[in-house]
Amino acid sequence: MTASLLLRDVRPFGAAATDILIENSRIARIAPAIAAPGVAVEEGRGEIVVPGLVEAHTHLDKNLLGLPWYVNEVGPNLLDKIDNERMNKKRLDIEPARQSARQAVRASVFGATHIRSHVDVDTEHGLWGIEGVMATRDAWRDIVDIELVAFPQSGLLRRPGTLEVMDAAMKAGCEVVGGLDPCGIDRDPKGHLDAIFGLCQRYGKPLDIHLHEPGEMGAFSLDLIIERTRALGMKGKVAISHAFCLGTPDPALVDPLIEQVAALDIAIVTTAPASRPVPAVKRMLAAGIRIAAGSDGIRDTWNPYGNGDMLERAVLVGLRNNLRRDDEVRLALDTCTVEGAKLMEVADYGLAEGCAADLLILPGETLAEAVVNRSPNRRVLKRGRIVARDGVPLRPAT
Amino acid sequence: MTASLLLRDVRPFGAAATDILIENSRIARIAPAIAAPGVAVEEGRGEIVVPGLVEAHTHLDKNLLGLPWYVNEVGPNLLDKIDNERMNKKRLDIEPARQSARQAVRASVFGATHIRSHVDVDTEHGLWGIEGVMATRDAWRDIVDIELVAFPQSGLLRRPGTLEVMDAAMKAGCEVVGGLDPCGIDRDPKGHLDAIFGLCQRYGKPLDIHLHEPGEMGAFSLDLIIERTRALGMKGKVAISHAFCLGTPDPALVDPLIEQVAALDIAIVTTAPASRPVPAVKRMLAAGIRIAAGSDGIRDTWNPYGNGDMLERAVLVGLRNNLRRDDEVRLALDTCTVEGAKLMEVADYGLAEGCAADLLILPGETLAEAVVNRSPNRRVLKRGRIVARDGVPLRPAT
Repeated sequence: MTASLLLRDVRPFGAAATDILIENSRIARIAPAIAAPGVAVEEGRGEIVVPGLVEAHTHLDKNLLGLPWYVNEVGPNLLDKIDNERMNKKRLDIEPARQSARQAVRASVFGATHIRSHVDVDTEHGLWGIEGVMATRDAWRDIVDIELVAFPQSGLLRRPGTLEVMDAAMKAGCEVVGGLDPCGIDRDPKGHLDAIFGLCQRYGKPLDIHLHEPGEMGAFSLDLIIERTRALGMKGKVAISHAFCLGTPDPALVDPLIEQVAALDIAIVTTAPASRPVPAVKRMLAAGIRIAAGSDGIRDTWNPYGNGDMLERAVLVGLRNNLRRDDEVRLALDTCTVEGAKLMEVADYGLAEGCAADLLILPGETLAEAVVNRSPNRRVLKRGRIVARDGVPLRPAT
Repeated sequence: MTASLLLRDVRPFGAAATDILIENSRIARIAPAIAAPGVAVEEGRGEIVVPGLVEAHTHLDKNLLGLPWYVNEVGPNLLDKIDNERMNKKRLDIEPARQSARQAVRASVFGATHIRSHVDVDTEHGLWGIEGVMATRDAWRDIVDIELVAFPQSGLLRRPGTLEVMDAAMKAGCEVVGGLDPCGIDRDPKGHLDAIFGLCQRYGKPLDIHLHEPGEMGAFSLDLIIERTRALGMKGKVAISHAFCLGTPDPALVDPLIEQVAALDIAIVTTAPASRPVPAVKRMLAAGIRIAAGSDGIRDTWNPYGNGDMLERAVLVGLRNNLRRDDEVRLALDTCTVEGAKLMEVADYGLAEGCAADLLILPGETLAEAVVNRSPNRRVLKRGRIVARDGVPLRPAT
């Protein structure tokens, strides 16, 4: 049980100023309050408060933060990047426990209170990544909640023995089963999907599959996923990361898919890449589809960009989706907050009495300004305790 | 004539450390040097030095920097945004002299040493914008070079009298003639293009036309521009801003256009928007076409995004064009440096002996890291004098 805290003079989502009383790590009351004896006070100075940012798709285990600069000379294909990374991971000293802690702390400082991380599983490294990220999850659980997706980055069937390591990862406690381009990488969509859905059934866990496949090929794979989701009664338990095929400019291809994705409550996770087709945020929301956002890999052997800041991701979502009006900027932020929480099924998430006090306080005249400014002067609360201030992590004393 | 300055221990483009001696506002020597009496020394601390950033496409006259937050509720069409802005400019107190100075100083602090600004010209505001930006150009010429494009934002022929104001703007000293979507806005491509090319001929000035028109319509307008460029002997004197039509995924449409754009040395200016088709940077460079980059409008009635940082623009160019390898990140930076200087025909631009000492010094292990990090800890030199340090403008004493 943590001490009570009164956040005085804060503006929820940029609305009128009020106070937020936190008791037992939860939001006890949102109303003008008078400081009581024994209740610590944090002056909000009229700043804006939003629920904590949700990083819904990243790869904590394999960033290069704090390591010497990696000069990227990798070839253009997906398999070039996959094989280059797997072959160089140990040589480059990409130690999952250390690297995931670096990224998790950085994400927390930016305001993330929840992270879903895909974590590599392959026959060369076994559970190295899973164990490393689990160590970080346990060591830093007072600043951020981390959920693990067992992710067959190098393919499942093309590298025999991988399914057994995936099984071991689920046994070790991963919360979500991952998958990857059933046509493009494994070249055996039925085999790949039967295998990962089988893991979901065996462990009673949800699925979050990377689907980069574009156009008709991606639509085919998505159709196979839809078929299995329905047949196995997994409504609400499947997520598609990337889902580039849903960005195909062909309503005849996309519209029927969207209808079924909505009917089966399949969630979409986007990183809003500028150079690829993407599922449109407004279209997904209008169809009632959960659409969360993530950084994807940051500063890794794949790509030098990205800093793990989910407010910057909100801006990139806004730019990619041409969200210019203030009400549209709010939608961009939603993909990095409430939509991510829906994906991760965080029950007590939000800015309402009873919710966990996972909060981000940041300057701005309006919510839209706070988002586009991405000020480094942020205060981050996890379960009612301030865990970062102005870019500096404050490890709680307990 | 300015005092001599020795930049000690800097790494040109991230290469080995050396010294740069600046005399008479120019780079006198790039070689290990010994400090001489009377020569001030700036310690580079092994940081990276590049030539100053070039903002090749912005709208200095109409940002909202420092004004109350503008709640954007504007409709989705280009004409909605155009009319909304023109009708609200005075009500919102968007005073061009003040606003352009705010943006110019901010751009300089980020490292820009050259700016090409399109400036609104219309029958309601006359030369208000032109005179304001010229006042800023004159008042701040010791920190940044500003070039003006007379820009008929509200259309040329659809609003009679605009051509006369354009003529007056050129007479007042604008360096470049502007134009806008000859089909989409004026709905009279022949009339629009004949008018603006006529101004070019009358004043002996180059052209930089906004061309948002997509696909076949844009290709048609571009073809008309090519025809006039050739007929009037304006090779090397025409630029197309945006040029979305060159991003059309149809080689049969695009390839012949690219060939002629290259043959007539027509320059392309991109803002690398994530939500529109764009001319591909590598494709343009491979064809020998100059391709510069710009911020477009920042924080205005059109759009809340953008901060005027041309290093952030380099990252957005990199993301939009999927430039991941270190040698590709360098190309993204080139669009924000040397390619912009080529567009603006800056004769003495670069990191070589004899060039103007317009420089940016910034931390980073490699050039790619310096770009993706976008550190606020930058030092900016204009004509051999340090004009900004760590985000703070240092107005020279003269």
